[in-house]
Parts: sequence; C-alpha cells; structure tokens
Amino acid sequence: MSMNLITFLSDFGLHDGYTASVKGIILSINPHARIVDTSHSIQSYQIEQGAYILASFYHVFPAKTVHLAVVDPGVGGTRTPLIIKTSRYFFVGPDNGLFTYIMHKEAYHAYQISLQRLEQLHLVSQTSSTFHGRDIFAPAAALLSKGTPLTALADPLSCTPHILADRTGQDQQVFHARVILIDHFGNIITTCSRFQFPPDGARKIRSIKIKNTVLSSVQQTYGDVPPGSLLALWNSSGFLEIAVNQGNAAQVLGGLNGLEYVDIVLE
Amino acid sequence: MSMNLITFLSDFGLHDGYTASVKGIILSINPHARIVDTSHSIQSYQIEQGAYILASFYHVFPAKTVHLAVVDPGVGGTRTPLIIKTSRYFFVGPDNGLFTYIMHKEAYHAYQISLQRLEQLHLVSQTSSTFHGRDIFAPAAALLSKGTPLTALADPLSCTPHILADRTGQDQQVFHARVILIDHFGNIITTCSRFQFPPDGARKIRSIKIKNTVLSSVQQTYGDVPPGSLLALWNSSGFLEIAVNQGNAAQVLGGLNGLEYVDIVLE
Amino acid sequence: MSMNLITFLSDFGLHDGYTASVKGIILSINPHARIVDTSHSIQSYQIEQGAYILASFYHVFPAKTVHLAVVDPGVGGTRTPLIIKTSRYFFVGPDNGLFTYIMHKEAYHAYQISLQRLEQLHLVSQTSSTFHGRDIFAPAAALLSKGTPLTALADPLSCTPHILADRTGQDQQVFHARVILIDHFGNIITTCSRFQFPPDGARKIRSIKIKNTVLSSVQQTYGDVPPGSLLALWNSSGFLEIAVNQGNAAQVLGGLNGLEYVDIVLE
Repeated sequence: MSMNLITFLSDFGLHDGYTASVKGIILSINPHARIVDTSHSIQSYQIEQGAYILASFYHVFPAKTVHLAVVDPGVGGTRTPLIIKTSRYFFVGPDNGLFTYIMHKEAYHAYQISLQRLEQLHLVSQTSSTFHGRDIFAPAAALLSKGTPLTALADPLSCTPHILADRTGQDQQVFHARVILIDHFGNIITTCSRFQFPPDGARKIRSIKIKNTVLSSVQQTYGDVPPGSLLALWNSSGFLEIAVNQGNAAQVLGGLNGLEYVDIVLE
Repeated sequence: MSMNLITFLSDFGLHDGYTASVKGIILSINPHARIVDTSHSIQSYQIEQGAYILASFYHVFPAKTVHLAVVDPGVGGTRTPLIIKTSRYFFVGPDNGLFTYIMHKEAYHAYQISLQRLEQLHLVSQTSSTFHGRDIFAPAAALLSKGTPLTALADPLSCTPHILADRTGQDQQVFHARVILIDHFGNIITTCSRFQFPPDGARKIRSIKIKNTVLSSVQQTYGDVPPGSLLALWNSSGFLEIAVNQGNAAQVLGGLNGLEYVDIVLE
Repeated sequence: MSMNLITFLSDFGLHDGYTASVKGIILSINPHARIVDTSHSIQSYQIEQGAYILASFYHVFPAKTVHLAVVDPGVGGTRTPLIIKTSRYFFVGPDNGLFTYIMHKEAYHAYQISLQRLEQLHLVSQTSSTFHGRDIFAPAAALLSKGTPLTALADPLSCTPHILADRTGQDQQVFHARVILIDHFGNIITTCSRFQFPPDGARKIRSIKIKNTVLSSVQQTYGDVPPGSLLALWNSSGFLEIAVNQGNAAQVLGGLNGLEYVDIVLE
C-alpha cells in the first residue's frame, strides 16, 4: 500500500512560487499526496549541504515515503534524472551527488527516470529545459507516492550514481576537512565523516583546528564541557561537529563564511 | 465533488502567527481542508508582485482548487472582498488587482463575498477591521473548499473587478517597464507582458536597456547565449525576464533595488 | 474521535532539517497526522515571544487539536516535559513558561510526560540529550493526535507549571513594560497585558512612553487616529500594542532592537 507521503527539499526558497508549482504538479497527479516541506533554503547549488541535510532526517519517516530532493546546478545539462530505491524509501532527484550520504549508509538500487515513458503517461508534454523540479522530478515522485510501479517510469541505471568526491583532503597526518553547514543553533558541521575512522581505532584524532582555535579531543556529548565552552563531537548523523555547550559556536568563533578548512591532526 | 484543496499566498510572513490563524479558521470550518503554503513572503503591500507569483503557479493545481491570496494594503477600507470563478478554480481575496493576470488569461465570473451571509452562517461574529485574511477570506475559502455553493456566500459583482494599471509607460518607440520581482535565482522579471506584443508581429523589440546594460535581442531559451552571459527572454508566465545563463542576473547587474525602469525600444 | 491535527511552533528555523525530523517522527507514529506549521522563526530561546505567538492563534483551531511548541533553552537540564490539557486542546512542550498565556486564559490540567512509558511503547529507544523536540515532544504529540489516552504517556504534575515572571516592573505610578515582538507589519507588542488592569477601572493609563515618544491615550481601533499616526491599543490577544494606522510603527519610531522598555504611567 502506498503512503502518499512525499518530503520535499530544494534550494528554491519559499518566496517566488517555484515550490508551489512543484506541489501543484504533484497534487494534480496524485490528489491524495501529502507533501512535507523539509527545507527549501539550501544555499543555491550547494549539493553537499543538501545531501547532508537530507541524510539527517530521511530515516525517521515512515516506510514507503518518497523523498524528493532538488538541488540542481546542472539542470538542462546531461546529468541523469535519478531514482534511488532502498528497502524503505524512494529518493528522487538529479544524479549529481545529492544522495551520496544515503548511498553510504543504505543498500540501494539506482534507476534512471525515462522521459519517454513520462511522456507516454501524458504527464510531460513539453519539458522545460530549466525547471526539471516541476517537469520531471515532481511527476516521478507523485507517481511513486501513489504506488505506480517503478518499472513504469524508470529503467535500471547502467552505471554507478554520482558520489560526491571526498572533500576531505588528506596528507600523512592531517585531514583538511571543510564546513558543510552552520546550523540554526550555530553548530558547525564539517565534511569529516565517521566513515573515515574505522571502528578498529587504527586512526585516532589528536586535535582539531578551526581558524586559530585548537580542540584537543572529541567529546561524547555537549555536557562533557562546561556551559559556554567549545567542543568537538560526532553528531547524530555521524559527522564531526564543532559546538558550544548551551551556546552558539559560530558566534564564539566569529566571522565564519562557511568556506573554512578544519584541520584534523591524527595521532 | 470538492477537493478540500486550498493554496494560500500572502504578505504575512511566517514569523508571527498570522498565517497560523488563517489556517486554524480554515480547518475549523472544513476539518478536511488541505492547505498548501505557496508564498508568504510577498513584499508588504506589493500587489503586483503577489499577482505575478500567483499567476506563475495557479494553473498546475488540480481542478476545484481554491486559491486564497491576501496582499491587502487597503484592509479596513472600501475595497470589495472578491471571489473570481474560472472554469477550473476559485480565487478568493481583496479586489485590488491581485487577480489581474488571472483575468488576463482566463474567462471568469466575479462575485462579492456577502458579510451578512457569512454572519448568518455563524462564521463571522465580529469582523475585525484589520484582519480580513482571517475573518472574511479564510471562511470564504474554507466554505468553497468543502463544496458550499458559491451563491450561499457571495453575490455577482455588479461592476468590473479592479485591474492593475499597466505600469508599462509608453511613448512612441520606448516602453518604460519596471521590475516586478527578482527571483530566488537572480532572474529579473519585468512588468512587460507578451500581451502587449500581438502575434501579428506588428511590434517588435529592437533592444532592452536596464541600468547601463543594453541587450539587443530577445532569446528563446537560456542556452541561446554562453554560460555567464546576460539575455532577455519571454519566461514561462509570458513576462519579459532578464537572466544569465547558468548564473545570477541580479548579481551580474549589481545594486538593483527592485524599483528600476527597464526601457524597451521598439523597431 | 481524534482529529489527527497537530500545530507545530519552534525556534528551529526551516533551514537545516530539524523541523523535518520532528515531522518524520510524528508521521511514523501517526501516519494520518496532519501537521500545520505555525512559526519556526521564534528568536532562539525567546520563550516569551513563543508564548505570545502561540497564544495569538491556538484558540481558532478545531477542538482536539494538539499544539506542539518547542522553544527550549533548558534542553538536557531538569525542566519537565509537559502536557497541558484544556477543555478543547492539548499543549505539548517544555515546562519553562511557554504556556503561561494559555494558563492565564484557560482552565487546565497539567501532566508530566513519562519517558519510561514512552520507552515501553518502544517509541523512545535512546533519548538524545539535545533534541527533545524529536525524541520526547514529537512522540507525545503524535500519540495524543491519534487518540492515545493521556494516562498512557503522562502522569498528573505534582507541582504547578512554570509561569513566566511578570516582566512588567512596577513602581508607584509607572509600569516598566518591555517589547515582546515586533510583528511583520511593524506593530510593537509589549509585555503589558490587560490582565494587569482589572475591569473595575481602578487602574487607568495616563500615558505611554517608548523611546522619546509619548502617547497620551489608549485607542479602540487603528482608525481612531489619522493614517500615518502612532497609537496605542489593546490588541486582539489582550496585550498593549503600539502601531501606526496604515503604517509601520517600528519604522516610524526607528532603531528599535526589541529590548526597549515601554513606560506606562498610571493616573
């Protein structure tokens, strides 16, 4: 049984009616669809940020939820319109790395949306070259949300989906991670993922440097340091985060522009 | 059969609970209503901007959708509370030009909401003089969304609805259009509408000037110019738009305040 | 019969997926839940502002609506997770004063959410110390929205819920009220509540001073002064508001930072 449930993440903003158009198309195809806005303020074209935020919430939704995600600087180019199927969910969006962190965590099958079959279903008349969110991804998500078989709109992808290059540069003893996101609470999330530190403990962090501040260890929880103090910890999504207990790390560090490097020195 | 579907556009913002009140009233009258937020960040009192954004998305929603739109600088004054009925939709809001571009594109009938009948339905007890969005438009939209006949809450309008004056000044050979909206992607949408250029080609554009930049032709699609280059084109809503292929026109032109004139020189 | 209706107010912002996580948890527990976003832009940790905005809209929603409100600077500390039950609604959130203005206006019973029972219902596996919105309040709201009896998840509170201290300082003849909120229209809402002025008229306002401006009376409606003029009035939520008829009071007064005192001189 389908859930009629679609989450919707984009870099469209909420101002000028782009998200409204996507919602209208979805509801035209599946009038029972229930659309959950997740975030529409991904910074323009910041695929990595969209990927991180999507990965932070997708797993708490009920099984059969369709996750629609559109951060698509290559719209109109040659990147493939993609469906990723995991045991519990569908993910619909451009093949540009937006589903990297999902594919790191889940077994999946990848499919390519067939424009030809969307046309045969009379869902796509003339595809705009600039608004695939409305013209391709929304119809695909709407069909999946009402239980249309995947094979009716997509073919298995013959190649591997695009995976974001590991932005964590690396030399002998130092990782050069970068900031993905400064969240609403001023927490600073970095590109450094727990996946890079195997559980055998072969690699251990000695210190973390951001701007001129050095943190000498990774804590378990915010409360491990006094209120107002900076700390580093693995957050619930498995990324290295720099935070302040009961405070705002971005304000404490000051003057961040979101493009900083974070040096992680290994033992 | 009613759709229970209501889109909601306003200049209320999402901060201070005004939209929440409107939604609560709608759900009190029609507990099955499904409310789709479209945009609540129309610039305060910018009727033309609201009209443009509404016109950009209304047509993709399913038939029988009720489009609620409240940008209402004249609240408390004498402007009429309006319902516009087209073959597929209802539009509910103030009679101040907000539905201009709908009326340009669709055959319609116009109705005046009857406060007296809303009162008899016990939906309006004491009408606030300042919050018609909650007190008049929300109840009207809720009733229509659950299938209440139009005649139970409104009378045919005896006069013509308000149409926005054509803000495109005009002399012999130059149109003086203005900026309606700088969208999320930095595209600059102008007041110049395709309606002003009849298909017989009697009027042709020779050049377009914004600030100190002159564009010498109107392109078909973004890709008609190299990435990073400025172009003008008729957008999917039929308005003249100034854009940058794979870029941000507002950034490229710089220093726009949204009040600029755009001079359109005719052949 | 349950309504499946949940309103959701927070200081989480709409950017980084926190509200999405809360919505996902709710829908996992009650797939029929209908979640109405009210405001997610409460200023970080401004309990009083959240309390005011919640109080401005809760009463227009249908009976049996669950109002979920999370503005929670003390998360991870000792404050109690709370449910307030009134004749028509449930309110779910932290016991830190967020429901003060509800409790001023409604008869209520207060309950403490039992983490142990949420665990027994397999809804909470490991409670994060930092995200009670997702881990405690969302499950509680979801259960109530689908008709789970209150006693299955909460116990009567043995003490009195936290009430915000009256921020209106007071000497013989002057109240020192403060600004709670500058709303979208530039109206300035103060901490001064009509509750402080009993209907017997024993206390009357002689004048109101904000910055260097003195208003010598409290008006009934905006229209009692000419367009463009400042006025004070009791707003529809029962708080003293400083406004401009058909204008923006914050702009007229200029330079407000939201921390101003408003001196209310009594007769």
